[in-house]
Amino acid sequence: MPLIYRVRSPFGTRWNDNDQYGHLNNTVYYEAMDTAINTWMMANGGLDPRGSAIALCASSSCDFRASASFPEPLEVGIGIERLGTSSITWALGILRAGEDDGDAIATGRFVHVFVDAETRRPTPIPPAIRASVEEQLV
Amino acid sequence: MPLIYRVRSPFGTRWNDNDQYGHLNNTVYYEAMDTAINTWMMANGGLDPRGSAIALCASSSCDFRASASFPEPLEVGIGIERLGTSSITWALGILRAGEDDGDAIATGRFVHVFVDAETRRPTPIPPAIRASVEEQLV
Amino acid sequence: MPLIYRVRSPFGTRWNDNDQYGHLNNTVYYEAMDTAINTWMMANGGLDPRGSAIALCASSSCDFRASASFPEPLEVGIGIERLGTSSITWALGILRAGEDDGDAIATGRFVHVFVDAETRRPTPIPPAIRASVEEQLV
Amino acid sequence: MPLIYRVRSPFGTRWNDNDQYGHLNNTVYYEAMDTAINTWMMANGGLDPRGSAIALCASSSCDFRASASFPEPLEVGIGIERLGTSSITWALGILRAGEDDGDAIATGRFVHVFVDAETRRPTPIPPAIRASVEEQLV
Repeated sequence: MPLIYRVRSPFGTRWNDNDQYGHLNNTVYYEAMDTAINTWMMANGGLDPRGSAIALCASSSCDFRASASFPEPLEVGIGIERLGTSSITWALGILRAGEDDGDAIATGRFVHVFVDAETRRPTPIPPAIRASVEEQLV
Repeated sequence: MPLIYRVRSPFGTRWNDNDQYGHLNNTVYYEAMDTAINTWMMANGGLDPRGSAIALCASSSCDFRASASFPEPLEVGIGIERLGTSSITWALGILRAGEDDGDAIATGRFVHVFVDAETRRPTPIPPAIRASVEEQLV
Repeated sequence: MPLIYRVRSPFGTRWNDNDQYGHLNNTVYYEAMDTAINTWMMANGGLDPRGSAIALCASSSCDFRASASFPEPLEVGIGIERLGTSSITWALGILRAGEDDGDAIATGRFVHVFVDAETRRPTPIPPAIRASVEEQLV
Repeated sequence: MPLIYRVRSPFGTRWNDNDQYGHLNNTVYYEAMDTAINTWMMANGGLDPRGSAIALCASSSCDFRASASFPEPLEVGIGIERLGTSSITWALGILRAGEDDGDAIATGRFVHVFVDAETRRPTPIPPAIRASVEEQLV
């Protein structure tokens, strides 16, 4: 199978993630993507949510192909679609633990814009985050 | 100002909607859209989440233009981008209460596919929902 | 009917509040309580979550008597069990909109301790909040 | 250190668990407890959320001693305070991964009442769940 995501991050499901239809609510997939990329940036690029440059979501999208339910453990596959000056477009897959990249139950996109924490105006991607993205994800 | 959304639905914010950056987390916008369209279909089209035809999210997206914070009251503007045989593509706006349609802080799209509650295979949009969409939203 | 709560705050439910059992998940009741008392303190006592004194939850509890489901609109009844030097013990009721205080579907308790935002050490209840509690809730 | 909890269950935190104060919102602790005990009953006692006997929350409480923040991994310590005919009172601890039982950042209680899924009237604890509780947790 072709490798689509260079990195995978575990995502545990919760009892209250299942909605009335007995499967994970669509919003949980966005929680998974948001969690995976922030965790990765904190661990690999020194992102500090209390620091001077923070990443805000400018747009996001998700295509849902199959459903999953608590208590299934999931994983988020992390890739890069575009690395800009102050923005990162993440390409993400929600995967059942251990399954092939091509069998993602959902695929998503998440555009992060880095901004100054005070002014909330765009600012360049912090060098340590850019370097880690280039080394590990592109 | 041009009218974009035929209907508006109120959406109250919660203390825990604000994330570490002091504004509504991006996932809350999807909760707002999901809530608004299900509320509308239950009230206007007889959608019964325990009935034989249910609406699942096939894809969704959101563009974030400005931020909002609890305790600001919001509204969801509801429109229709496409009415198919078994799917509805909703065009949605997240608005500060009382503001013009064109000043939405976020605009989103939500594709609902109607499926049989048991088999989860596509099924036509229930007639009462189709009729209400045609009368009130198109 | 005896009046138990001096104030009521509206609480809208969301599609994803309903869990797999088709009713509001128990955690949503805590979201309702947390939202109602913070909203009240911001509107009536000048609480500023970015200010120097903030209120943290030291303990909470809830007794669930009946269930509710989205899209039912709810209300939170707000009362005071104890007003200390740096803590407030809130007595709360989750009510179907318009129902009597005695028919609460759940009753809860929430202990807020005011702390310095930097040191997170206890600090006296801000005077404006204390005054509003004494005037409007005790 | 004294052993308080016979079993521990991992609980991953999420970006949006941190509220405006930069730490896990109090409601997340209830999500953790709810998730841990349902996961345990599904894995060890054959609980089937679509089956004839389901467990509803009759009351819950939590004492918060210290805060935690995403991305810290947590664990839920699981013990039993009382095993009744149709109810289980769980004694729970929220722990930083690997820390001693006595250093729980929060301790909670969760009363589950088993009910018939249709009538929602109390029903005896399913034998497989009772047996597992007696063997592994009491």
